[in-house]
Amino acid sequence: MINSMHKIPEKMKSAVLVDYGKLQVTETAVPQPEFQEVLIKVEACAICGTDPKIVKKGWQNHPPLGEFIPGHEYAGTVVTLGDQVTSFEIGDRVAVEPHKGCGICVNCIRGNYTTCLNYGNVEMGHRHYGFTCNGGYAEYAVNHINSVHKIPENVSVDEATLITTTGSALYGIIRIGGIKAGEAVVVSGPGSIGLMAVQLAKIMGAGKIILTGTRDSRLQIGKALGADVVINIKESDVKKKVFQETDGLGAGLVLECAGTPGAAQTAVDFTAKNGRIAFIGIYGEPVTIDLNKIVQWNITTIGSKAEGDWCLERILPYMEKGLIRAQPLITHTFKLDDIHKGFETFEKRIDNAIKVVIKP
Amino acid sequence: MINSMHKIPEKMKSAVLVDYGKLQVTETAVPQPEFQEVLIKVEACAICGTDPKIVKKGWQNHPPLGEFIPGHEYAGTVVTLGDQVTSFEIGDRVAVEPHKGCGICVNCIRGNYTTCLNYGNVEMGHRHYGFTCNGGYAEYAVNHINSVHKIPENVSVDEATLITTTGSALYGIIRIGGIKAGEAVVVSGPGSIGLMAVQLAKIMGAGKIILTGTRDSRLQIGKALGADVVINIKESDVKKKVFQETDGLGAGLVLECAGTPGAAQTAVDFTAKNGRIAFIGIYGEPVTIDLNKIVQWNITTIGSKAEGDWCLERILPYMEKGLIRAQPLITHTFKLDDIHKGFETFEKRIDNAIKVVIKP
Amino acid sequence: MINSMHKIPEKMKSAVLVDYGKLQVTETAVPQPEFQEVLIKVEACAICGTDPKIVKKGWQNHPPLGEFIPGHEYAGTVVTLGDQVTSFEIGDRVAVEPHKGCGICVNCIRGNYTTCLNYGNVEMGHRHYGFTCNGGYAEYAVNHINSVHKIPENVSVDEATLITTTGSALYGIIRIGGIKAGEAVVVSGPGSIGLMAVQLAKIMGAGKIILTGTRDSRLQIGKALGADVVINIKESDVKKKVFQETDGLGAGLVLECAGTPGAAQTAVDFTAKNGRIAFIGIYGEPVTIDLNKIVQWNITTIGSKAEGDWCLERILPYMEKGLIRAQPLITHTFKLDDIHKGFETFEKRIDNAIKVVIKP
Amino acid sequence: MINSMHKIPEKMKSAVLVDYGKLQVTETAVPQPEFQEVLIKVEACAICGTDPKIVKKGWQNHPPLGEFIPGHEYAGTVVTLGDQVTSFEIGDRVAVEPHKGCGICVNCIRGNYTTCLNYGNVEMGHRHYGFTCNGGYAEYAVNHINSVHKIPENVSVDEATLITTTGSALYGIIRIGGIKAGEAVVVSGPGSIGLMAVQLAKIMGAGKIILTGTRDSRLQIGKALGADVVINIKESDVKKKVFQETDGLGAGLVLECAGTPGAAQTAVDFTAKNGRIAFIGIYGEPVTIDLNKIVQWNITTIGSKAEGDWCLERILPYMEKGLIRAQPLITHTFKLDDIHKGFETFEKRIDNAIKVVIKP
Repeated sequence: MINSMHKIPEKMKSAVLVDYGKLQVTETAVPQPEFQEVLIKVEACAICGTDPKIVKKGWQNHPPLGEFIPGHEYAGTVVTLGDQVTSFEIGDRVAVEPHKGCGICVNCIRGNYTTCLNYGNVEMGHRHYGFTCNGGYAEYAVNHINSVHKIPENVSVDEATLITTTGSALYGIIRIGGIKAGEAVVVSGPGSIGLMAVQLAKIMGAGKIILTGTRDSRLQIGKALGADVVINIKESDVKKKVFQETDGLGAGLVLECAGTPGAAQTAVDFTAKNGRIAFIGIYGEPVTIDLNKIVQWNITTIGSKAEGDWCLERILPYMEKGLIRAQPLITHTFKLDDIHKGFETFEKRIDNAIKVVIKP
Repeated sequence: MINSMHKIPEKMKSAVLVDYGKLQVTETAVPQPEFQEVLIKVEACAICGTDPKIVKKGWQNHPPLGEFIPGHEYAGTVVTLGDQVTSFEIGDRVAVEPHKGCGICVNCIRGNYTTCLNYGNVEMGHRHYGFTCNGGYAEYAVNHINSVHKIPENVSVDEATLITTTGSALYGIIRIGGIKAGEAVVVSGPGSIGLMAVQLAKIMGAGKIILTGTRDSRLQIGKALGADVVINIKESDVKKKVFQETDGLGAGLVLECAGTPGAAQTAVDFTAKNGRIAFIGIYGEPVTIDLNKIVQWNITTIGSKAEGDWCLERILPYMEKGLIRAQPLITHTFKLDDIHKGFETFEKRIDNAIKVVIKP
Repeated sequence: MINSMHKIPEKMKSAVLVDYGKLQVTETAVPQPEFQEVLIKVEACAICGTDPKIVKKGWQNHPPLGEFIPGHEYAGTVVTLGDQVTSFEIGDRVAVEPHKGCGICVNCIRGNYTTCLNYGNVEMGHRHYGFTCNGGYAEYAVNHINSVHKIPENVSVDEATLITTTGSALYGIIRIGGIKAGEAVVVSGPGSIGLMAVQLAKIMGAGKIILTGTRDSRLQIGKALGADVVINIKESDVKKKVFQETDGLGAGLVLECAGTPGAAQTAVDFTAKNGRIAFIGIYGEPVTIDLNKIVQWNITTIGSKAEGDWCLERILPYMEKGLIRAQPLITHTFKLDDIHKGFETFEKRIDNAIKVVIKP
Repeated sequence: MINSMHKIPEKMKSAVLVDYGKLQVTETAVPQPEFQEVLIKVEACAICGTDPKIVKKGWQNHPPLGEFIPGHEYAGTVVTLGDQVTSFEIGDRVAVEPHKGCGICVNCIRGNYTTCLNYGNVEMGHRHYGFTCNGGYAEYAVNHINSVHKIPENVSVDEATLITTTGSALYGIIRIGGIKAGEAVVVSGPGSIGLMAVQLAKIMGAGKIILTGTRDSRLQIGKALGADVVINIKESDVKKKVFQETDGLGAGLVLECAGTPGAAQTAVDFTAKNGRIAFIGIYGEPVTIDLNKIVQWNITTIGSKAEGDWCLERILPYMEKGLIRAQPLITHTFKLDDIHKGFETFEKRIDNAIKVVIKP
């Protein structure tokens, strides 16, 4: 039995990938929620750095061209409940997380659902919304309840689209063992993940927070959001500077969010003895690092796959309290009809764009 | 060779335990710093809850009556350097930590110096200042450099005396595995350790912070220092209230700072499934708990011995940034000559005394 | 669509709880596997210490009297596949684990399914086979695939029934942080969980293994299975003895499997500084412990709920290699028709019964 | 006061580095133990892979040429006690560990003495025997008690020289979080550290143990010592093979002991989702790895500096029980006079040399 808020239309406006490189706003059928799923009226969907890549080249196991609706950072209102949904009600304001594990592989059973062994296998119950099944560049989207989070009253849907971005940073922090009380933390890369990492470090107990990057405008936003020191790596010897700022010890923790080989290399260089590095970025090519330093300096590193540990739920109390602020990162919003303009603004960083939100 | 700031007198004023129950302000010899030790001109020494007990009954392996100077939460200025001291200079403003391990037992070598196997054995290099060797109720005190921490310019010596109190709370948090992002934390007991625990929870990533206790005045201070909810356990059913405040789940983390059997029992009762409890208090008698709940609810608990992990050093960046505030806890100061008045004020909680600082 | 091995009968023999205290062998319908479930031809079902309690008093949310088939430690052969089962084939030899989480609560999503928030709610997908839904004292049983483990060729179904018992010990070891290389481990209580704990400690890196208990016959089995030292607590001062056997340090790790208040108290008493205690037993009443020692000695403790972390899968390689031996614990087997004799033998420990296996 | 066993001679035979590349057996003064030190009559000193490098090029902060006695894996008998030594007696059979921290830096206080901040600073109390102060290619050597371990009666001094090698493997295992019960472990590199890693994995709970390398003779020794599968990477596609041997999942844990860029790269390639890698080798050049896989597959890695955590003490119970066998690795012994022959045998791997022990 399906419980619906009001009359749901049969057709909706959506942005469909009709061919590689070609995202087209068109009309498609409104999807139906099934067992443990809800239908969401999408009100905002943020563009993620992977979205342009998906548009260009698709993604492993993506839905067929002509049917595939990308978009994975969305929020809206629950309008229909599928079977066996008791934890949500019609009218709930919600944001989604992209990953939903199959629930039956050893990784999922043990809680590591972002590394589900049935990745991309929709039949087996896995979902990667906006990647291997349809997502949020549309008026409506269907999500399994394991991928849906209620948002507090004082958080807007636009802000809520950033819980996935925040979750990527937080999962990295969780996996590396948290922030040690008072330790010096370097956040490398002032993109949207990095700017969330700065805020997380600040509220999770870091001592000095150092943000490194190449764009002064973003570094200044980082400063406003909590970084104690910013280093423009084009203007300074970042390794030397980090050691100076840390009494010659180096960074206790590095949150590498830049995702470039150079940033990864440098992260190793300025980490302290017994220090830790969370690699959170996406590295497009092999990276050459000083592995011997990692051994000789007793360093721990992790890679962290997306926003695991259901940590989006952990971010909501922070947003509610105003400890994590998403608004300063949202530089632009566009209607769904103007999604191409939105992508262009995002990709070319027009007007210093950071996060661009599409409003279906 | 000993390097001194200025002429150090031969005699000093100090409070000596001349008999159990009898602390007498008198004149004693100024101690001399030896290998890796410094002489500190004590400017403030806070009264700890164990001090009245020490005065009444002494302590395992305490120095002889007539010689024993208690006091273990002190701060001041380095005035003389013993041999082989390179990390401090004359004039450094410092606060101490009470424990210094022997450095040669397996626990010390592995970093667990508060559980040194040579506890109380001065000959073997162990020190518990103010307990098993002389402490800070005196104009001067000698400390091994492993027990000395430089204090930031903007932190007063009075405030700095509270780093040990803060350290007790922090070590508990460290040992239980830190604060999980956004989790509900109950701090049980609004004494000085509890009030520091509230502040630590707040800056280390807690979600809702609930403070429980019996005195409204202290609960209100806790609220001012960051508690979201306070519960007077005399007026409410604390277990029921904690579940209400946590969506029926219970506390993700309990920091039990009250040190009473009742508080320990209740802590178990209102902890969530997979929750954690740090027992930080001193329990004067055996405690009866619902151990079966600990098993059935998959709960983790730790006891934490004092301010280990050199975590006082971790607190300094917090105090410097104003994230940990000691001043609101310091309700009274007394001159060394008035130390008995200080103890009376502290023990009888006159004028809602929390922390009482002696100024030698 | 259901795929079956051969003709499955419509009726089967089973032991049904018709009234509290009254388990009756009777004929019931063979259950049908549904979505992601399999039908198992049960070939062996071991009696667990909780079974007599279930028979006597039922269990929270148990199926109706007259329908409820207990038994949760069973093994057999997969004979029918429900929908969407790809990881098992007809003919697979399997053993089950009792807990299957709902898959949609925060605890399940994070991998802590033995503390599922929908415990006992069959509608929401939770299963506790033999407790809140039917189990294995029957010719056939239905299990969700998350609760089924393939068994190696060289492991018999009788032996395989003990993977749950082993899992209870292993989950305790996992939750307490594993065995530290070479440390002295005390296993308290030589019941079937304790005897598995001895074997696990032995193959996971313990130094000296000390087994404590009250029955010499079981202590001797423990010795044969790997304990270096056994202590009959009726004949010796167990605390003193443990300190003697550990160079005066106490036990680095205690695995408390006895489940009695006395055993829990003593466990605290003989644990070393910085030591750890895993409480694995079921404690029928409140326990009085020296909590102050836990604080002063910096001790970590955990309770562990059943066989979480899908750790039964971790035990199979051990059984295959012969590192965990179940056979020495299986003292008796009975046909399903003789289940009452089986229960009596188990409960009264007739002929030194340890594990009694029912063969449907 | 110094307590001596018998008349200690004033002069001793020793191998001194008189110039880079020139190790000369000569006569030098027998050293005197000072505060908390003992004098050891060296009976065996194993050649480590770093020794030839030290002989060739020296080491950061090494003692002056003409005085420097290398050798850091030695064992013998305590013959003289320095001041304040109570934990050893004359006649104790002991083996040493090379690292002794300064005891006063933050890393040492927290137990991370192999990454002492005063590395190489003898004045501040740091020692790296055979590297930054004299070692064991001599008839006598002085060691601080923190670097001395008593050896069980049934372990020979020759075998005991390998506790440091074993410790390097064990510290890596400890730092990566131990062996998970039953997991598939790949040991990469069948040198002496790798062969110890195989044995450790076997006794600490690994499931299938896979040893990879290039020399069949060593792989066969690994098999005799516990490896379930050996892969000669020159003959097989090691990545493909590891996946085949692990049901397509990859290795849960990799202990990379080969220390070559190629081995490090491959280690990343064949690690499982959520897997872990301990880098234990010494990497002479930068290493290019697939960092993106580390992120996408949620992988944890550590570098581990030498034999920290006083883990040599943890190895002794294993050697006593015969669980770690050193003898199969000791292929050659030479007198101190023949040390050049010993080095040549070791470096050129004459007669399949693995561990070569010098007998002063």
